[in-house]
Amino acid sequence: MAEKPSSAKKRDQFLAVWPALADELVQYMEGEKMPKEAVNWFKRSLDYNTPGGKLNRGISVVDTVQILKGSELSADEYKRAAILGWCIELLQAYFLVADDMMDQSITRRGQPCWYRVENVGNIAINDAFMLEAAIYYLLKKHFRQEKYYVDLLEIFHEVTFQTELGQLIDLITAPEDAVNLSKFSLDKHHLIVVYKTAYYSFYLPVALALHMAGVTSPSAYEKALDILIPMGEYFQVQDDYLDCYGTPEQIGKIGTDILDNKCSWLINKALQKASAEQRKVLDANYGVKSPESEARVKAVFQELELAREFEQYEADSYRRINALIEEIPAEGSQDGLKREVFQSFLAKVYKRQK
Amino acid sequence: MAEKPSSAKKRDQFLAVWPALADELVQYMEGEKMPKEAVNWFKRSLDYNTPGGKLNRGISVVDTVQILKGSELSADEYKRAAILGWCIELLQAYFLVADDMMDQSITRRGQPCWYRVENVGNIAINDAFMLEAAIYYLLKKHFRQEKYYVDLLEIFHEVTFQTELGQLIDLITAPEDAVNLSKFSLDKHHLIVVYKTAYYSFYLPVALALHMAGVTSPSAYEKALDILIPMGEYFQVQDDYLDCYGTPEQIGKIGTDILDNKCSWLINKALQKASAEQRKVLDANYGVKSPESEARVKAVFQELELAREFEQYEADSYRRINALIEEIPAEGSQDGLKREVFQSFLAKVYKRQK
Repeated sequence: MAEKPSSAKKRDQFLAVWPALADELVQYMEGEKMPKEAVNWFKRSLDYNTPGGKLNRGISVVDTVQILKGSELSADEYKRAAILGWCIELLQAYFLVADDMMDQSITRRGQPCWYRVENVGNIAINDAFMLEAAIYYLLKKHFRQEKYYVDLLEIFHEVTFQTELGQLIDLITAPEDAVNLSKFSLDKHHLIVVYKTAYYSFYLPVALALHMAGVTSPSAYEKALDILIPMGEYFQVQDDYLDCYGTPEQIGKIGTDILDNKCSWLINKALQKASAEQRKVLDANYGVKSPESEARVKAVFQELELAREFEQYEADSYRRINALIEEIPAEGSQDGLKREVFQSFLAKVYKRQK
Repeated sequence: MAEKPSSAKKRDQFLAVWPALADELVQYMEGEKMPKEAVNWFKRSLDYNTPGGKLNRGISVVDTVQILKGSELSADEYKRAAILGWCIELLQAYFLVADDMMDQSITRRGQPCWYRVENVGNIAINDAFMLEAAIYYLLKKHFRQEKYYVDLLEIFHEVTFQTELGQLIDLITAPEDAVNLSKFSLDKHHLIVVYKTAYYSFYLPVALALHMAGVTSPSAYEKALDILIPMGEYFQVQDDYLDCYGTPEQIGKIGTDILDNKCSWLINKALQKASAEQRKVLDANYGVKSPESEARVKAVFQELELAREFEQYEADSYRRINALIEEIPAEGSQDGLKREVFQSFLAKVYKRQK
């Protein structure tokens, strides 16, 4: 059998850390003398909701720590970086369990959304809370003795708040049952994706890794933010593009952004370019749950050459982000940054097909 | 006009701190360039969900800091103690917004539950998250420079997790739509009330005040816990008792614990004492949404003399808690505790009628 590609190996190695962390959380509950039924419930929620995604965010912490160190991680260093990575995955699980309820989604990662599992229902709200609480339990257990412990707590708090702000704007801008395209704009889209996605998916993994690598200078964190926020925005615009133009085989699902009145980059770009006539078609059909309406919206997207617009956007973003990365000296910056951290991140997302 | 009773004055003084805190949170959002609509949404959620309760938990922080200091608080000390108090009220708001959704409750504090307010619905889940996030924003803003800052963060994390554990046991033990009294027991009731109520309502206010008063010895926190957890349990048993035996005028609502299949102290005490015949009546009628069923359950409670049982429980608890308090030396303990902290707390709850 051929050797596994390195990304699959990385994933397996990262996944191998999870069972011990889930056990620690379960043992905490057992230590508090919780009834068996409650312990099993939490264990099931942890395993159902936390692994199972692409794990890009979690693995990025490990990758970044490795690059910053400049040599292989010891087993202990690997484990600690992976724990921080799993804390991001728990944060993501917390958001997704709740988002799926708010969006009334049906499936997630190829299985029913947690709240749709038998007997779960609205208890999923409390389960989401517990997934978040698990983060701070693990941070305390494994990082309490570190000088940067309080920084870890603060960054999780702050990024959590920012993500919730993004979710709020998204929810009130694009409610599924009350389409109003005049609420949309590329500025609003920018705010939503930066807050709802970029902070926790791009800035957080690198910031955690910087702390673990002993980087303390605020300027390093600011520069990282300046690069990673545009990168996160580019990533989400890709996501929006693929929802419409990716094949189901590529993206692993059938895109429903148009049907669901999502405040996607495509509709905002379309609104910017549309003639009065085209705008009428969009107003009448966007967010309407019928294949005919969806097709009419897609036809306008076609007329407006949004695929070409995206390619343009992608090329511009790539150039802009690379220019930002190259502001870091080739030999690394004095405050502890390395170009490679960002180059490797960008390489993972540039022109991705899924 | 006669002078206000001191508890109303205290409440007004505490309430007077809130608007500035809500403003700080709103200003944070404005600083992040959030759309006006989102800022207004958050402001409305903060004001709708945070003040408006009895504020006992929040005011207890101030009272305790005052007792520990042994003299009047300066304006600045008052404000800081009140901020910690408001952080508990935010924690409570976070729990209640979510609990009301999980319980499908209709009203809370004399107004519709937040999720039932027009256009809110499931967005309330994210609003609950943001109420929690507000705690850590305020703690960072006002306590970051304190040596005990990290202790504050940890105690909020820990108590949050414990409360969620209590909520989980409650939810799976007493689902409204699947009555099964064999899941109930006084032990289960004990666990639920300790985790769901006592930690955050009784231990948390005192622990925060101890930190603010500079108490660092772990033994002080342990002793406080040993007294406050039984006190919190006693408080919740009272609550359960009043739900059935208090008049609507006293308790400000019509009790529905029997109709709602609540895992209340009364039903658990009844199950402990019931004959086979009485047990059948309870099994057939508890949690059944009809006034006739409720009356049949109440009749069994009557036969079992639960009101007298409660009086017995109350007297025993009072004696036991006082004995624990008296283990603290009359002149105060070396690790910084004072009897009066607990006596004043107990005086607020003993034989309360609402």
